[in-house]
Amino acid sequence: MAAKKVGILGATGTVGQRFILLLSEHPIFTIHALGASSRSAGKEYKDAVRWKQSKPIPDNVKNMIVKPCEAELFADCDVVFSGLDADVAGDIEMAMLKKDIAVFSNAKNYRRDPIVPLIVPTVNSDHFDLIPHQRSVHNLKKGFLITNANCSTTGLVVPLKALQDAFGPLSHVIVNTQQAISGAGYPGVPSLDILDNIVPHIGGEEEKMEWEVGKILGGVSENKNGFNLLENTIVSATCTRVPVLDGHFETVSVKFANDCPSVEDVCKALENYSSEAEKLQCHSAPAQPIVVTYDADRPQPRLDRENLKGQTVTVGRVRKCPVLDIKFVLLVHNTLLGAAGSSVLNAEIAVAKGLI
Amino acid sequence: MAAKKVGILGATGTVGQRFILLLSEHPIFTIHALGASSRSAGKEYKDAVRWKQSKPIPDNVKNMIVKPCEAELFADCDVVFSGLDADVAGDIEMAMLKKDIAVFSNAKNYRRDPIVPLIVPTVNSDHFDLIPHQRSVHNLKKGFLITNANCSTTGLVVPLKALQDAFGPLSHVIVNTQQAISGAGYPGVPSLDILDNIVPHIGGEEEKMEWEVGKILGGVSENKNGFNLLENTIVSATCTRVPVLDGHFETVSVKFANDCPSVEDVCKALENYSSEAEKLQCHSAPAQPIVVTYDADRPQPRLDRENLKGQTVTVGRVRKCPVLDIKFVLLVHNTLLGAAGSSVLNAEIAVAKGLI
Amino acid sequence: MAAKKVGILGATGTVGQRFILLLSEHPIFTIHALGASSRSAGKEYKDAVRWKQSKPIPDNVKNMIVKPCEAELFADCDVVFSGLDADVAGDIEMAMLKKDIAVFSNAKNYRRDPIVPLIVPTVNSDHFDLIPHQRSVHNLKKGFLITNANCSTTGLVVPLKALQDAFGPLSHVIVNTQQAISGAGYPGVPSLDILDNIVPHIGGEEEKMEWEVGKILGGVSENKNGFNLLENTIVSATCTRVPVLDGHFETVSVKFANDCPSVEDVCKALENYSSEAEKLQCHSAPAQPIVVTYDADRPQPRLDRENLKGQTVTVGRVRKCPVLDIKFVLLVHNTLLGAAGSSVLNAEIAVAKGLI
Amino acid sequence: MAAKKVGILGATGTVGQRFILLLSEHPIFTIHALGASSRSAGKEYKDAVRWKQSKPIPDNVKNMIVKPCEAELFADCDVVFSGLDADVAGDIEMAMLKKDIAVFSNAKNYRRDPIVPLIVPTVNSDHFDLIPHQRSVHNLKKGFLITNANCSTTGLVVPLKALQDAFGPLSHVIVNTQQAISGAGYPGVPSLDILDNIVPHIGGEEEKMEWEVGKILGGVSENKNGFNLLENTIVSATCTRVPVLDGHFETVSVKFANDCPSVEDVCKALENYSSEAEKLQCHSAPAQPIVVTYDADRPQPRLDRENLKGQTVTVGRVRKCPVLDIKFVLLVHNTLLGAAGSSVLNAEIAVAKGLI
Repeated sequence: MAAKKVGILGATGTVGQRFILLLSEHPIFTIHALGASSRSAGKEYKDAVRWKQSKPIPDNVKNMIVKPCEAELFADCDVVFSGLDADVAGDIEMAMLKKDIAVFSNAKNYRRDPIVPLIVPTVNSDHFDLIPHQRSVHNLKKGFLITNANCSTTGLVVPLKALQDAFGPLSHVIVNTQQAISGAGYPGVPSLDILDNIVPHIGGEEEKMEWEVGKILGGVSENKNGFNLLENTIVSATCTRVPVLDGHFETVSVKFANDCPSVEDVCKALENYSSEAEKLQCHSAPAQPIVVTYDADRPQPRLDRENLKGQTVTVGRVRKCPVLDIKFVLLVHNTLLGAAGSSVLNAEIAVAKGLI
Repeated sequence: MAAKKVGILGATGTVGQRFILLLSEHPIFTIHALGASSRSAGKEYKDAVRWKQSKPIPDNVKNMIVKPCEAELFADCDVVFSGLDADVAGDIEMAMLKKDIAVFSNAKNYRRDPIVPLIVPTVNSDHFDLIPHQRSVHNLKKGFLITNANCSTTGLVVPLKALQDAFGPLSHVIVNTQQAISGAGYPGVPSLDILDNIVPHIGGEEEKMEWEVGKILGGVSENKNGFNLLENTIVSATCTRVPVLDGHFETVSVKFANDCPSVEDVCKALENYSSEAEKLQCHSAPAQPIVVTYDADRPQPRLDRENLKGQTVTVGRVRKCPVLDIKFVLLVHNTLLGAAGSSVLNAEIAVAKGLI
Repeated sequence: MAAKKVGILGATGTVGQRFILLLSEHPIFTIHALGASSRSAGKEYKDAVRWKQSKPIPDNVKNMIVKPCEAELFADCDVVFSGLDADVAGDIEMAMLKKDIAVFSNAKNYRRDPIVPLIVPTVNSDHFDLIPHQRSVHNLKKGFLITNANCSTTGLVVPLKALQDAFGPLSHVIVNTQQAISGAGYPGVPSLDILDNIVPHIGGEEEKMEWEVGKILGGVSENKNGFNLLENTIVSATCTRVPVLDGHFETVSVKFANDCPSVEDVCKALENYSSEAEKLQCHSAPAQPIVVTYDADRPQPRLDRENLKGQTVTVGRVRKCPVLDIKFVLLVHNTLLGAAGSSVLNAEIAVAKGLI
Repeated sequence: MAAKKVGILGATGTVGQRFILLLSEHPIFTIHALGASSRSAGKEYKDAVRWKQSKPIPDNVKNMIVKPCEAELFADCDVVFSGLDADVAGDIEMAMLKKDIAVFSNAKNYRRDPIVPLIVPTVNSDHFDLIPHQRSVHNLKKGFLITNANCSTTGLVVPLKALQDAFGPLSHVIVNTQQAISGAGYPGVPSLDILDNIVPHIGGEEEKMEWEVGKILGGVSENKNGFNLLENTIVSATCTRVPVLDGHFETVSVKFANDCPSVEDVCKALENYSSEAEKLQCHSAPAQPIVVTYDADRPQPRLDRENLKGQTVTVGRVRKCPVLDIKFVLLVHNTLLGAAGSSVLNAEIAVAKGLI
């Protein structure tokens, strides 16, 4: 199979930089075009970007000329990954879609669109079933638009899905996040705000978490033209920013609609959970969507965020919750599975399903 | 009134250092004796201590000779404050008590003792009513033993008490803590564990929080010889350590046994809450036991931990909880109101009540 | 003496906030006017500012209406303190000066001006002698313009002055700085750049340090109409940014033009150094311009930056340098003595000298 | 060639953990024995260690039984790497040597021994020439003892050697270090000492740097039975600890005995420098011993410490020093090239030279 040509929108941003690292040596994708704002367009990538990764800029990308994010300039791409900010993502991604391009977006703009799948790759890849309907609505042959979830939502829904599959619906979820600074991009969080400090507010984040869970854990409608949002799983989120570079940490309490399973059964269900991404043998699929730790003081961001190349969710401290049923803590790499890693794996799934 | 002579046990430790700063210029207490381990005993304080405060050692303490923590050496103290570690606090504090000394302990050892009050000064100073009974049991004239609460419990119970007073019992509480490193003493948390990291476990902390709330928010029995532990308020705690120097931050969701009040009424109840400590005009009583902030991103440890000299609890982001009733975040200075500051205020209350 | 009315330019910035804290309860100055950019003008201060101090906004300032920085709006001020950014400070400060106002600037714009004194208050308050000449040039009656030094320069010149006074000229100085993030203002240094990191470059800082020393440590010309820049003291600076909130730390090696004194004599000279600011009994003058520490691991930013209210320079680890003569480390509070604190003390000196 | 069996002493410590990561998949070494204190001996490695690396414990090491550090238990090892603390390293390493084992030590104990080479692998691998003499003194057939340098010394001597080779002897060097916390091992630096702080003292570090340079940059005596210490290169060091996890950062000023070369020539000399380790095609030799950066704000610990797998020294900001001749900054990974990485590369060189 010939490598698929990919474009990266918002290529100079934090998520864009992760896309470049993930795709520069990818077995089925090859970086073909880079898009960024007009300030960067026309420059070589190495001159346009403020590179903030600990690995250097890949050689095959350094001298690529950055383009403006105009759809016609990406028309020869098989796939476009978007790390654009929400204030520009809406128009640009729609223009790309209308050019019949397969678009994988990290932005929030279309997550609530009733015909756009919101896919966490190790959770609800069955939502790709809606693509034929989406294409017919937009009158497309090969293009489509997929979004991935908010980084904190992503970490949460993987274990929730495992629990829902094993024990039936969850009635209530209370989640608290301690989110890494890389989630805010660059320049992002001022150091004066976060050294020796916690910021107990991230604009819009709690609302996203409370809503997105219902779309992701819900199903596709019978005739594949819409989504059945979960209505009986209530989520309450509190989101904070902490002085950690990478890795969102979350504490979670859940209540089951049915009987509460034992801690042992919960651990077993989390460990045994597997997703379609592994079955399709996708390159970026983790060996396990969930790693369960039994050490009392794990997971920790610095030690566990790179687990399974940052594509798994690490769950620990599973125990009874005196108020709801079960509580646990989790860690997700916010710019890998929580952002660029989800998009890339979603695209691999789409290729495996013959959609690209 | 002549100044009361006070002794400080564990004077070289983190809590001991705070005691010294709080008491070196106190209007009714004067530092009379310092106790520490045999390693420090016999040395001048300045040579025995590894001082880690940003204010210098007070001049009137620098050259005091540290004593071993033997009861007879503190017999001429009116009050003894204990910042001892739990592994030695039990025996030493009991020996002091038996010498008829008034002992205010920060250690966990006697918190669950059925005749020892566990007092957060702005919450349950009525628990001093048990002292006559305690004295009769131990056959004492002027001595008694009071403990204050775990630092994280302390931050939590102040707003819970305000809510309980205003709206009746709470049925359920879910609390998550993000605790400062100073809570672990010195050397305490290794920097390799906490820089760019979160540690999701603090030994025994969750159990303390879940249990202590019931004693503190419960009442004294009718004949003043025991405590009525709250049985119908269920608490679920998850405790984590974060890279913050001072100030424990907590996110809280509560459910009321009765109808849920409005957010406005909750804010009003928190703001209007006052305690006996203010009414008694104690020196260290905060002007308000609770400060409510309305900025979306407050309280923050670095900006708010010194509010009202670290003796208040700052509450923010009061809002509806989709799962329980109301959620909010709070901040408490863990070594001031959360430790030494509680002890000192408790002792001031005891003086005001004529117990010392 | 009636309180002098002061205006604060750049009142919403990091330095401006420090000015407000220093001046809100000042015995001889009273805050009369606040100036900021057109974005803030017309708003109440509390709504215009993003307050980042651990002490709250003083009540007497909260509701003051912020003005644009136009000279006529500050004409009734006796003194204007400027915390303006360099890109606007030049024009605005000159306009204020021409309105016959006494201006104390933190900006770099006029530091190299041949008739503007560059004064570190505990070092070269004799440079006020040039004011009559400056007034005559600008045709002023009561106005004048004084700048204070770069924050890192300020920390360095205090001990250099003490050594120069005691042992004659220094021929060579090598200095390395480790500078706090608050020196960069707000939003300033992105957290992604500084958590778990060092940034080995601060634009223009090394040049400022290498040049400013020569003006500050030089004298006023005999007829009081210019400055004699030191030409035989060569300075080499390397400046870095580190993850510390407040307090610039510097390591220094010096070579004397004459014989090298003993370490003991150097310590004595530093400890015994005193300045005109103390002799004039200025409110903000530190009891000692230099505090010498003898502990092997001091000074440390977190423990020593508040020494003598942040108006002193703490020097430690004085010892022989195998390459030059003597080496030591020092700490200066970058927003107190290193910025707003210098300006305020300079103004107090000017009042004491009858210039205001 | 059959893989060489290696033992690791101090296997549970910070340096020991790095040895394990470096050696678990090594082409010519295979981990054969692990040694640690009696507290760990007898346990499986995974139970004995507090693993603090972001990569998990290699599977082939997890269940190895840790041994006490007794020489007879390591007699079947071809090589022993020692990450022991200095208080026990002296006796244990000597016992291993007397068992005719090739010992590569990270400890300071034998660095000043007149017949023990002190080798930084990309600097002075010619010091292996002394091994025949060492063997004859100790009456050994295949054993010998090599130490590597202090971590900060290691970063410094690589560029110094390049400059010395290109431009002749250096007469003076002034170096300031900003050292990472991982250099102090675990538990190491208490977080209360280093969050929002700098500690300006690391016991013995400055003396090590000032002395070790002279041995490493000096030559082997003509008859290969001793070392000619450099006497005319004077080094002055100031060492500080900063809140960075990995990567020692240093600022350096040097003076040449001969004429000062141009900045361009210095950069060229640094970039073109190569060592015997590359020529011998050793597995762990970096492609370049020195990477030169030309960005004004590089190197930075977080972004550059992994350059060339942590086996290179990154040098930046090369420019004229107004006091000495040339100044620059550098970064070295303190637990890779600065510790375990040097030992492993030294052992690879020894194999290539036929000494093992």
